Amino acid sequence: MKRTLASTLVVFAVSLVHAAPAGDRSLLGFSDARAVEQRKLEAQFDSKLQKENLRTWMKQLTARPHHLGSAAGKKNADLIAELFRSWGYDTSIETFDVLFPTPKTRLLEMTAPEKFVASLAEPSLKEDSTSSISDELLPTFNAYSVDGDVRGPLVYVNYGIPRDYEELERRGIDVKGKIVISRYGGSWRGIKPKVAAEKGAIGCIIYSDPRDDGYFQGDVYPKGSFRNELGAQRGSVADMPQYAGDPLTPGVGATKDAKRLAVKDAPTLTKIPVLPISYGDALPLLRALAGPVAPESWRGALPITYHLGPGPAIVHLKVAFDWKLVPAHNVIARMKGSTRPDEWIIRGNHHDAWNFGADDPISGMVALMEEARAVGELAKQGWRPKRTLIYAAWDGEEQGLLGSTEWAEAHGEELKRKAVAYINSDSNGRGFLYAAGSHTLERLVNQVSRDVKDPQKGISVAERRRAKAIVEETGENRTDARNRADQRIEALGSGSDFTPFIQHLGVASLSIGFGGEDGGGSYHSIYDSFDYYSRFGDPKFEYGIALAKVAGRIVLRLSEADVLPFEFTNFAETVGKYVREVEKLTDTMRDDTVELNRQITDKSLEAWRDPNEKYVAPKPKVPVPHLNFAPLQNAAAALKDAADRYDSAVREREGKALSENGRRELDAILMTGERSLTTAQGLPGRPWYKHQIYAPGMYTGYGVKTLPAVREAIELRRWSEAEQQVGVVSKTIEGFAREVDRATAIVQGDPGS
Amino acid sequence: MKRTLASTLVVFAVSLVHAAPAGDRSLLGFSDARAVEQRKLEAQFDSKLQKENLRTWMKQLTARPHHLGSAAGKKNADLIAELFRSWGYDTSIETFDVLFPTPKTRLLEMTAPEKFVASLAEPSLKEDSTSSISDELLPTFNAYSVDGDVRGPLVYVNYGIPRDYEELERRGIDVKGKIVISRYGGSWRGIKPKVAAEKGAIGCIIYSDPRDDGYFQGDVYPKGSFRNELGAQRGSVADMPQYAGDPLTPGVGATKDAKRLAVKDAPTLTKIPVLPISYGDALPLLRALAGPVAPESWRGALPITYHLGPGPAIVHLKVAFDWKLVPAHNVIARMKGSTRPDEWIIRGNHHDAWNFGADDPISGMVALMEEARAVGELAKQGWRPKRTLIYAAWDGEEQGLLGSTEWAEAHGEELKRKAVAYINSDSNGRGFLYAAGSHTLERLVNQVSRDVKDPQKGISVAERRRAKAIVEETGENRTDARNRADQRIEALGSGSDFTPFIQHLGVASLSIGFGGEDGGGSYHSIYDSFDYYSRFGDPKFEYGIALAKVAGRIVLRLSEADVLPFEFTNFAETVGKYVREVEKLTDTMRDDTVELNRQITDKSLEAWRDPNEKYVAPKPKVPVPHLNFAPLQNAAAALKDAADRYDSAVREREGKALSENGRRELDAILMTGERSLTTAQGLPGRPWYKHQIYAPGMYTGYGVKTLPAVREAIELRRWSEAEQQVGVVSKTIEGFAREVDRATAIVQGDPGS
Repeated sequence: MKRTLASTLVVFAVSLVHAAPAGDRSLLGFSDARAVEQRKLEAQFDSKLQKENLRTWMKQLTARPHHLGSAAGKKNADLIAELFRSWGYDTSIETFDVLFPTPKTRLLEMTAPEKFVASLAEPSLKEDSTSSISDELLPTFNAYSVDGDVRGPLVYVNYGIPRDYEELERRGIDVKGKIVISRYGGSWRGIKPKVAAEKGAIGCIIYSDPRDDGYFQGDVYPKGSFRNELGAQRGSVADMPQYAGDPLTPGVGATKDAKRLAVKDAPTLTKIPVLPISYGDALPLLRALAGPVAPESWRGALPITYHLGPGPAIVHLKVAFDWKLVPAHNVIARMKGSTRPDEWIIRGNHHDAWNFGADDPISGMVALMEEARAVGELAKQGWRPKRTLIYAAWDGEEQGLLGSTEWAEAHGEELKRKAVAYINSDSNGRGFLYAAGSHTLERLVNQVSRDVKDPQKGISVAERRRAKAIVEETGENRTDARNRADQRIEALGSGSDFTPFIQHLGVASLSIGFGGEDGGGSYHSIYDSFDYYSRFGDPKFEYGIALAKVAGRIVLRLSEADVLPFEFTNFAETVGKYVREVEKLTDTMRDDTVELNRQITDKSLEAWRDPNEKYVAPKPKVPVPHLNFAPLQNAAAALKDAADRYDSAVREREGKALSENGRRELDAILMTGERSLTTAQGLPGRPWYKHQIYAPGMYTGYGVKTLPAVREAIELRRWSEAEQQVGVVSKTIEGFAREVDRATAIVQGDPGS
Repeated sequence: MKRTLASTLVVFAVSLVHAAPAGDRSLLGFSDARAVEQRKLEAQFDSKLQKENLRTWMKQLTARPHHLGSAAGKKNADLIAELFRSWGYDTSIETFDVLFPTPKTRLLEMTAPEKFVASLAEPSLKEDSTSSISDELLPTFNAYSVDGDVRGPLVYVNYGIPRDYEELERRGIDVKGKIVISRYGGSWRGIKPKVAAEKGAIGCIIYSDPRDDGYFQGDVYPKGSFRNELGAQRGSVADMPQYAGDPLTPGVGATKDAKRLAVKDAPTLTKIPVLPISYGDALPLLRALAGPVAPESWRGALPITYHLGPGPAIVHLKVAFDWKLVPAHNVIARMKGSTRPDEWIIRGNHHDAWNFGADDPISGMVALMEEARAVGELAKQGWRPKRTLIYAAWDGEEQGLLGSTEWAEAHGEELKRKAVAYINSDSNGRGFLYAAGSHTLERLVNQVSRDVKDPQKGISVAERRRAKAIVEETGENRTDARNRADQRIEALGSGSDFTPFIQHLGVASLSIGFGGEDGGGSYHSIYDSFDYYSRFGDPKFEYGIALAKVAGRIVLRLSEADVLPFEFTNFAETVGKYVREVEKLTDTMRDDTVELNRQITDKSLEAWRDPNEKYVAPKPKVPVPHLNFAPLQNAAAALKDAADRYDSAVREREGKALSENGRRELDAILMTGERSLTTAQGLPGRPWYKHQIYAPGMYTGYGVKTLPAVREAIELRRWSEAEQQVGVVSKTIEGFAREVDRATAIVQGDPGS
């Protein structure tokens, strides 16, 4: 197998400079000969996939509410573990003890100008067989809301993000001592009570406006897929941008004996009580508001004039919880690698749901299971993976990525040594492939997506993905879709189990799934059920099979490659783009600040405003200085050079394979590369988040902030912090470039086999 | 008075090169000495204005339905004429006989999937005293709909403009043999049945969506100013972009003996029956539609999922009219000019309403009356205008500018010889000054608006207008607002009585009024009443006084100037902008065509589309050729040069006044300048419209198309017509430039006095 690495590297190099043509059969990390073998393996893998399994398992796993701490959740974990064992995996259930407060009291009423008591209940429907189950059902609530009993005038705050409060201030509206009602959307839900509390509000109601996932979008359930009048969205409101996982055990696994914070000291709990409601319950409250009419972009689809308040609606909100620890059962199934047992490919999906959770998470879970079963079938025929495979079914994701985070924290040191990559999925349905993650894996994702066909359209999922960008995007994004060799993958923020891996540990990660043609509006309601999913989600379970094919290929290529299929030029180009973005952000903020200050000082704002309406002129803002981005630009340039040098070295070695030792050494550098994108001290103010390229936003929650330390300092107008963080991030990028240079040195210096 | 003209021209020149500073007291067309006199005159004029008169007259004029052909309409005309006479005007009522069909039958019902009969009635409200009057009330209907009795499946067509039908086609929906329901907005209402009929529909319903002027925008009447559940918008649906005025007498005055078309041959009547309805009546119809969900931008604010149909809603629409001629009574009040009796300044507002019409048109009418009264007071003190003033109160505007058009047609030849300018107003309310019209008058409007104060803010209306543009606009428009010496005025499309003057006769025109802070939603409903207006429109009638001050100054400066206050550099700059716009339009259409064709041929559209939804791929479009815009560019350059030469000539003559004869000759050129922007043959396919710079759009109705012959040929993808019209329009502009040069020759060659 002398030619192995050389051939691999040639392929590697060639695929850098042009889009892989349809007929290109090369595979990143494989020699041409090995690529042929690998494709045979993948064809065998495909042949084992049976969509009927997905349906059967989904039906079983969604029969009862199977949330964290529930009997059905435990039963599901046992069933999944049992199946993994039957497929030949070394399987265990690893349990952590985590904080999960469930409601004892939920009361929302309006006491003035008229009486109204919110129903806080989703009715059962004859078209949805599980909707009549009440045993162990989790009612509508937001996890990690504090207990509270508050009364006050109501204020409508739109999405409840910082710029919404600026609009309120301009209208002279202060939420201090008041209860805010915010609609879902515009940010992760946990941001809403966080900002509301920062502004002095005493309570927070979050409702699902029909504009966002109700009748405005399409017919409501059960006629169509969208949220009906009394459907409500459960969900965690912990301050996850501070840290993920169990609120009581930041940074360490929530084992039996772990040192725990007192509940009262847990910093990720909300500061004020929170409750989610349906639009049926929100309508009387919003209709009772007076005060200024809401700005146009704030108005939803309820048949009312949206006013801001405060009042005359007076609201009483009371919530109390049972602050108990519950067991989170992670199913961990291993298949040891034959030649690289200490290089781990981890593939996960959570198994817990808010209640029935057919879409979220079982649609992804059953695809993962079928993928694992097919891999097990290959193993039963005598094949063994080169590297170790770990399939994980996480518990407690819904509460804040509890199962995955506690496991990642508990095994952090070992994972930092051994983890090659983490591949996540969650919900899945009919539509387009979504892919996000480490850009060192962008080429791998692209190659895989060219090899899997869209089940309904018969073209590759890559082609569909590209078509979507061409048709729906404009400008640079459309040009990229047309001309860039690889389609871009997104950067990861948060919202699923990849977070502890990529952002806390620095394990290269991907998050994948299909969707966009699978309706919407069942999210975190009791109607996320088998009946719903089999009508609107993926009725033939064929996109579940497509997900198994995509994820299975990613796993099998990571596992079987001669050299790990990481690639650096795409990453370097992407980092360069982020650097230009933060520069542009600063320029835009500078121009906007100049314009705002000018409108204040030349009195245009005062001249423009309606004299009959209350208006508080904004204060002039401190001008945006010119920041020194040179260190970032130099670091990005250094990264590009290093990536190009590695690429050249690979080309120059064509026909001269590495030694086995060289391959191992190269793997060791490649697999830990992502770790060098983290810093020990983490991001400013939130040390749990270590990654310097990707993080969830402090005020977006799920939404990613790239180059977060720099970008958020700019957004928060902390100019000296921004310049300081430019230094930190630049050094981090330079450190990564040096790792790439170490890899180059091996490619150049290895004596060969 | 030897220095008169020279001083005038210096001022004239200076104001070209910088924004008039706050202390600039110069007036276009006046010497410095005469400007001081003029300002004294204007101060006297201001001192006569009494807002209580506006309230009193509004109360009188809105007491009963006073539409075209009504007893109250005749009574109002008599009252207005009486008042004008009492103020010293030579006043007559000029009557024309015009077609005005009023409803005999109005029926709209849904026969499937359930029964529903539309109420078609606006209820009386205790908060609105005239809403209980039923005598001579015009019910909700669209004037110039043909009779019809049709049944068919319903299709929702959004605004019912051509691009909406492209969206329907992509979804495989054809309106042939069907009844369309369109919402108000997006175009003038008459466009909707016109396009619907072109597409084969058999009936057209137009409803007011609460998104556009109902509860989405603010509280509904009587709590707030917006349209309530059963409020409906009456209005003409004649094909006004073909010609304005009486449908039976295109191009000639509808005098007793005029030759009339048979009703069946009148080309501006609709081809299919039309009926306007409220959102209360529309809701059951729209809720009953199935078929694809409407595109997001099509969805209104009703609490339903907007579907496109066709059906299953089956609708029966029956309308029949009394096709009668009625008298239109124009009140014409003259005050003869002392030294230039054959130079006419015409100032008009209509007096007819759909019913009570406090806002539309009485708010503007009473401001005009108070203006005329104050001018009359000046005359009673011995002052006489230099030029002739004509105040007009038009009838039949609502049906299609009938009164003004028939008068303009009947007196067309004399007007072409004698009319200096036409100044229009219509509705008026609290807010910002709106001004549109001939750009040769842009500087005059700017100078006037700097001299009138906003009654609530205490700053000039020019400052408020500028502040609005700075705060609300972006990019080039904001830069213009900040840096351009004069604030831009809009170009005129149609929608009020200026149309026959500017677009048919080529009389320089302006349309002015205040608004933007005066609510909205009473338009063409019975709630456009005194009670409404005195709460939401202009409660103190102070913006009525502001309008009298603005319009009065424009009239008095046009009347009293040494030389008519036209100016050409702003016009030349504006024409240059229009030329760049049509070039850019072509480039954008070319790029869009390339992109669309590419997405068809490379199959991205096919790859992108949801396989579960019906989708008819668009056909490739003929590529957009490169057109020869050089003649237009050269003409615009020639115009700019001519304008600059005139400007230089004026500067060079400083201190050396023109002879009286020279001034007369110069006036003669200046007053007829706008006529040279028209062509005898008019616009392609619509010869009534003669103006080559401004016209209402064929498919926008009210919305202006500048350089219409060229722009519309491009929009309709008629490339050879576009190039041909480039020639026509270029020659027209060159002809105008020659007129400017003739004016320059007088300035340069006149021996002086």
